Amino acid sequence: MSNERLIYLPLGGAGEIGMNAYVYGYGKPDEERLILVDLGVAFPDMDSTPGVDLIFADMTWLKERRDRLEAIFVTHAHEDHLGAVSLCYEELRAPIYARAFTANLARRKMEERGQPQDAVREVEPWPETVTAGPFTVSFAPISHSIPESNGLVIDSPAGRVVHSGDFKIDPEPVVGEPFDPDLWSAIAKPGVRALICDSTNVFSTHAGRSESELGPALTKLVEQADGMVVATTFASNVARVKTLAEAGERAGRSIVLLGRAMRRMIEAAIETGVLTDFPRVIGPEEAQDIPRNHLMLIVTGSQGERRAASAQLSRGKYRGIELKEGDLFLFSSKTIPGNERDVIRIINQLSEKGVDVVDDSSGLYHVSGHANRPDLERMHQIVDPQMIVPMHGEHRHLREHVKLAEANGRTGIVAVNGMMLDLSGNAPKVAEYIETGRTYLDGSIQVGALDGVIRDRIRMALNGHVTITVILDEGDEPLGEPWCDTMGLAETGNSRAALVEVMEEDLNQFLMRADPKTLRDDDKLEEALRRIARQTAQTEIGKKPEVTVVISRMR
Amino acid sequence: MSNERLIYLPLGGAGEIGMNAYVYGYGKPDEERLILVDLGVAFPDMDSTPGVDLIFADMTWLKERRDRLEAIFVTHAHEDHLGAVSLCYEELRAPIYARAFTANLARRKMEERGQPQDAVREVEPWPETVTAGPFTVSFAPISHSIPESNGLVIDSPAGRVVHSGDFKIDPEPVVGEPFDPDLWSAIAKPGVRALICDSTNVFSTHAGRSESELGPALTKLVEQADGMVVATTFASNVARVKTLAEAGERAGRSIVLLGRAMRRMIEAAIETGVLTDFPRVIGPEEAQDIPRNHLMLIVTGSQGERRAASAQLSRGKYRGIELKEGDLFLFSSKTIPGNERDVIRIINQLSEKGVDVVDDSSGLYHVSGHANRPDLERMHQIVDPQMIVPMHGEHRHLREHVKLAEANGRTGIVAVNGMMLDLSGNAPKVAEYIETGRTYLDGSIQVGALDGVIRDRIRMALNGHVTITVILDEGDEPLGEPWCDTMGLAETGNSRAALVEVMEEDLNQFLMRADPKTLRDDDKLEEALRRIARQTAQTEIGKKPEVTVVISRMR
Repeated sequence: MSNERLIYLPLGGAGEIGMNAYVYGYGKPDEERLILVDLGVAFPDMDSTPGVDLIFADMTWLKERRDRLEAIFVTHAHEDHLGAVSLCYEELRAPIYARAFTANLARRKMEERGQPQDAVREVEPWPETVTAGPFTVSFAPISHSIPESNGLVIDSPAGRVVHSGDFKIDPEPVVGEPFDPDLWSAIAKPGVRALICDSTNVFSTHAGRSESELGPALTKLVEQADGMVVATTFASNVARVKTLAEAGERAGRSIVLLGRAMRRMIEAAIETGVLTDFPRVIGPEEAQDIPRNHLMLIVTGSQGERRAASAQLSRGKYRGIELKEGDLFLFSSKTIPGNERDVIRIINQLSEKGVDVVDDSSGLYHVSGHANRPDLERMHQIVDPQMIVPMHGEHRHLREHVKLAEANGRTGIVAVNGMMLDLSGNAPKVAEYIETGRTYLDGSIQVGALDGVIRDRIRMALNGHVTITVILDEGDEPLGEPWCDTMGLAETGNSRAALVEVMEEDLNQFLMRADPKTLRDDDKLEEALRRIARQTAQTEIGKKPEVTVVISRMR
Repeated sequence: MSNERLIYLPLGGAGEIGMNAYVYGYGKPDEERLILVDLGVAFPDMDSTPGVDLIFADMTWLKERRDRLEAIFVTHAHEDHLGAVSLCYEELRAPIYARAFTANLARRKMEERGQPQDAVREVEPWPETVTAGPFTVSFAPISHSIPESNGLVIDSPAGRVVHSGDFKIDPEPVVGEPFDPDLWSAIAKPGVRALICDSTNVFSTHAGRSESELGPALTKLVEQADGMVVATTFASNVARVKTLAEAGERAGRSIVLLGRAMRRMIEAAIETGVLTDFPRVIGPEEAQDIPRNHLMLIVTGSQGERRAASAQLSRGKYRGIELKEGDLFLFSSKTIPGNERDVIRIINQLSEKGVDVVDDSSGLYHVSGHANRPDLERMHQIVDPQMIVPMHGEHRHLREHVKLAEANGRTGIVAVNGMMLDLSGNAPKVAEYIETGRTYLDGSIQVGALDGVIRDRIRMALNGHVTITVILDEGDEPLGEPWCDTMGLAETGNSRAALVEVMEEDLNQFLMRADPKTLRDDDKLEEALRRIARQTAQTEIGKKPEVTVVISRMR
């Protein structure tokens, strides 16, 4: 026994918000039996991942140890916790445990990717447990911004670890289970070795607010509106969708849900019994016969996603419905950093239509799903662990969370992706550094972040592209003149001649004078042609483009 | 006279924040003599303008009427008001009027672009005037976040127009002239036909705060710091730089200015007498001999710009100085929407170094340079114009500003770029819609936003690129097999074979069976090859790349 250890290894989610993936292991060093908690995605952006579909943590380390992986546990159904399960299942092949609502959505995802739905195993919450090798794991309900969120109680011979999952302290979350201090006290009672804890809102100094506080303000807003009301929020925030729908119903409005994710979430919530007594919903066709001041739309796209319902409505007609002067558009949401431009674009488009936009700057129409600083302190107190390991945060959040713990006399450690901790001792200690990274789903293919594929795309976006074609005869002499094609470059340069013509001229001059040795050597020739094309472009248009050189030899 | 009119035509800045360019004209329709107020730039982003250097308003309309352009007036030296003057001078050729500080910076820009510095004419403020055709224009000092900002008093036979410029109501702006209600009352006295008014902060409901309020809090912060202190703000906010430097000096620290823009601004401010008694500054070399707790750096890069001093310091050593655990980094600034990711990247890098980051979430370390809602109302009251035309705002700002004016019983109109207003009547009326757009400085070349150059770069970034080379003999028969090169695409597709090989095989199959008519026709052949390559890529990797087809014929 003394030779065995309990390890914690974040592969994603520690040092960023998104693509969570946390490994726990127990056993002799390098023989630990492993479990994976969550397997989520992050979303791409033009700056660093143009054209990419989804991003998730590099699973190489875990794949190489697949024979030791006992199970995958998914705490809740948010994309940054669930989204990569179906993408990685084929290579990990471990059973996936989740509670009913999450399992329902996980199975849909597995089906979409052609993976076996029965790999997803539905579990009951605490005090039920799942045995996974040396681990006994229980799903302890905790409040968050999606139904059936859970902290995990992870028992092993080294004692109890609590993995908080994403959480807030909400006694009345409208849909789903409230935060139950008694439950968490009971979990804490036998003593907790480590609390692995959500860090998202560690910089929010006020106590968190309950989802249930929003109803009255939302109802008042909808009641006072003259035209059509459109509200957007995360579809997965089923409680919010319900609160919005009830506000609409109270104001005598018919409810329309728009956007695929919205309908899918509500469907899953109803199928699994999470959601009961939701106001009656009508379809967009039916809505066209109803006066606009009797309508309320609840739509996807709170982050300005260009293909979501909100963006489509801001641009024009969507499913037969069009916004007009005097309508009201509500963002019942917070804009995630990085999405500001997309959200503002929608607001301006709505402004052009004469639609009044209300966002959460008043603080009345949205509450966060994560525990704020005082709530984190309360969780620390209740669980009273031997050590605190912050997760689900950028470096600044993890660091601040450790500071907070230490200020209260607790032991904490910043552990970023790839930092394997040994939790068996009295204090956390770094056991090993694992190489981690990111994998991109790019079209239908998974590429590594460092494969150079995306780097080349970024370079073409910044610098444009030139194709140079040269044909050489049997004696390695140029056959005709070189040929240039450009993409993403100005046609005419500083000399007022066509850029391709100036490049072709310069390349031809070079070829005419090139020594036979260079002409015989593909690599040398390619390098020389590339260099000349880039120099000419620099002179002509002030840019050094990416270059593809095609040398054809008539042999 | 009755046949003459006063027109206002925003070419940039009305419907966006950035690249300001406002035309005024007076005379018979289509014969108006024109002046241009401000000629600024906006900054590119990867989403819509990858690789672009600067963006400014399309000047086509004005160039075509260059013979009627009397002068360019630059209200103040911010890039979004001054930045494009040197880029457009060659084609506009009108004298550029500005006050000393702005003129100093304008001349530096003219020199950098090889333009004549003497095109810039330095003017004295109100009550001095400049005559420009039918216009008499005076620079009326107004407080903002850069020294020597001005509103313009534009007199013509149709009466007086006040162009507010960017402004705030600050009785004590630390550097530069305070807002002087008496001055503006005097300007208003003869009656003002129209107020063209800054709209940036129309959504900020509280009264604006004075620059002078920051000193004590900043001093306290610096005094309490243990390690080195680094503060970043816009270099052009000379008052802030001074306040920061004085806070450092009071705390017994030596001041280092880092970043080209920082040194240039302070230099211009001293040269023009705008800035007096600035604390003594030392160079970065000298700083290395001083204990870190006696140092304060004031650096560029408050918006996370990757090449600015703040980003460089967050990554590692910069000019011999390196940040360490226990140092303090202050953002004495607000993050402009769209820059969040870059700023957060720096904060996390600083966090990894153990540096404590303070931003303005407390509201203690930054004040805005624009008039908030109550200040806008006060300006409306003082100037008491016949009509209000909001400018310097996105559509949502302009619309809200009109609503604000109307709520107070005033006449307002939303005029976006390209909307020419006739201001001669009792109320503003739309005279004409002008086609407007954006011009990109891309390397050393100006390209139109709709030229397709940037669109192609974005497509390559999203979809990757394939080059197809085919050689045909004298009889239009393929000579050898087609050749593919890819850039920015996964190497191996779903069939586990190299993507280029699968494409080459499919293209070859097509060529073997192609009818002579297709093989003879470059356009048809190119189109067919492109279609096949895209289809194959779609099947293999789930992406449809951009394609360059090179057909070489041996004739």
